[in-house]
Amino acid sequence: MKVCIAGNRGGHIGCVLNGLEQLTDVKLAGLCAVAEEDKITGIQDWCDKNGHTPEIFDDYKEMLDVVKPDILVIVGPFQLHAEMCVEAFGRKIHVFCEKPAAITLESLAEIKEAHAKTDVHFATFMGSRYNPAFFTAKRLIEDGQIGTVRLLEARKSYKLGTRAPYYHQRETYGGTIAWVGIHAIDWVYWLSGESFVSTSALQSSLYNREHGTLEVTASCQYQMTNEVVASVAIDYLRPANATTHGDNTILVVGTDGVITVDERGLHLTNAENNGTEPLEVACDKQIFVDFVTHLQGKTKAHIGAMDVFDVTEACLLAQKSADTGGILETFER
Amino acid sequence: MKVCIAGNRGGHIGCVLNGLEQLTDVKLAGLCAVAEEDKITGIQDWCDKNGHTPEIFDDYKEMLDVVKPDILVIVGPFQLHAEMCVEAFGRKIHVFCEKPAAITLESLAEIKEAHAKTDVHFATFMGSRYNPAFFTAKRLIEDGQIGTVRLLEARKSYKLGTRAPYYHQRETYGGTIAWVGIHAIDWVYWLSGESFVSTSALQSSLYNREHGTLEVTASCQYQMTNEVVASVAIDYLRPANATTHGDNTILVVGTDGVITVDERGLHLTNAENNGTEPLEVACDKQIFVDFVTHLQGKTKAHIGAMDVFDVTEACLLAQKSADTGGILETFER
Repeated sequence: MKVCIAGNRGGHIGCVLNGLEQLTDVKLAGLCAVAEEDKITGIQDWCDKNGHTPEIFDDYKEMLDVVKPDILVIVGPFQLHAEMCVEAFGRKIHVFCEKPAAITLESLAEIKEAHAKTDVHFATFMGSRYNPAFFTAKRLIEDGQIGTVRLLEARKSYKLGTRAPYYHQRETYGGTIAWVGIHAIDWVYWLSGESFVSTSALQSSLYNREHGTLEVTASCQYQMTNEVVASVAIDYLRPANATTHGDNTILVVGTDGVITVDERGLHLTNAENNGTEPLEVACDKQIFVDFVTHLQGKTKAHIGAMDVFDVTEACLLAQKSADTGGILETFER
Repeated sequence: MKVCIAGNRGGHIGCVLNGLEQLTDVKLAGLCAVAEEDKITGIQDWCDKNGHTPEIFDDYKEMLDVVKPDILVIVGPFQLHAEMCVEAFGRKIHVFCEKPAAITLESLAEIKEAHAKTDVHFATFMGSRYNPAFFTAKRLIEDGQIGTVRLLEARKSYKLGTRAPYYHQRETYGGTIAWVGIHAIDWVYWLSGESFVSTSALQSSLYNREHGTLEVTASCQYQMTNEVVASVAIDYLRPANATTHGDNTILVVGTDGVITVDERGLHLTNAENNGTEPLEVACDKQIFVDFVTHLQGKTKAHIGAMDVFDVTEACLLAQKSADTGGILETFER
């Protein structure tokens, strides 16, 4: 199989390269910078060490037409993700895309329409699904350890630091609910097994330390199917002095137990566990290997197109709610 | 000073009796059961041991007219709290009332109107304000340890057990947002120092183990003044096996630090603290002593009428939002 990479922004490409190191039958065949600031030299160094000899392109569409890859990895400027997905889908190329796949509801609709005409595999960089603690939480919930899920409370907090200019404006950034919140919103969706019904969201750009319109705090509330309720707190105010970059926390309350994942690990309280000690956690899947082995028919992928569409829509609807006020319902399917 | 107690439901009267043990100049002068199931024998036993000889009444209004107390303690059926407050205010009697002071927006308006005609002191049993960890959190925030508060996430979870019939219907219970959630909603208000602007809330009575209409899960979102955002998660699904009855958790995110209070204690992350070890906590005030010494002009009480009105309104508006849908704004002041 042949893979092309378009763009290299944000520092997450490692999840693809690490996967490729385990996939001896997959070749990185094409490489193309997209944003002006894209540095692909790091990827080229990795290729030299790992026996890949990708052709270098200036235009990602030309790369797709010349290389005809099986898979396109997209790490472009956020506002171009949707267009790049559409170009790949039109060529029947499977897509593994940095999140969010779209930063407007309009461009999300375009991706969905383009995808509906193909049967290609589509996933985004939702790395926390493969985090040992979150992966184990999902397994325990599926195993019935907390009964039926009824309430979820998720939190995602980052250190702000000093962010590149494209974070400073909505047109190139997409908003904090989509960029930071998407992981927490994905946990709500994935761990509940429910669908989003409606959302109310709040946000503020106050105290953003001269980062343009970047929102520093946000709160998203979701009505899920079967009367399940969920809330997501998002902020960039994690103190520089905190021991980790991010605070990733979820509480899942079920009819027969409670699971929490946070910096202390995974805790389960149910009839057999009183929740005082963390449980052992593990994940035996690597995100990009999971993507490829799904294509090869060897496994069923942990993330698919429906997940991407539902979670991205939930983010962008919450963003719209926070921008304009009001409770917004998800689109009919 | 003379105190009367009307009602004894719910097991919280200890906060008054413990206070009286420290207040040698205050006498428990009248005692009256209100609900049919009220047991006042426990209080009478306490009186025998502590040198109080209250007169016993069958009618609380008669008690007020005969004893003419300085303070009325109300622990009546929830749906009678408001009426009992109004009767006391009309007689210029200070009131210390079990929460919530009202279970409908209409009766809350009646209390506010009656209180506006007097200058009596009014507080509710918001015991967690005097909990050492929460009290210390307030002190640290006032001391500027986390800068300006921007986001709050609160959680209150109880074990359901088997609850008396008056919990099974809204008319006598008032709803889970008001009964369980009020503490967490108070933390949001008290620790932020902001006012409520609007709320969106969700709830469900599914899986309530034959408790009538009692809501088992709820989520309240609050827009606060100055673009501060807050969310409150409420449930009755705490596993019987959990080591404590309740899960009381708050996260307060400020511009310069983060405070959490949960079962692990109080953690502070800011320029001087990396948040890995719990801080020492303490509270030197007892809730009923604080009420009485405020009346005596010795201290400034930690809870006053404005707090009761604002927080009760925030609960009841959230309840209405959850019942009827939509985002509801607080009343003009």
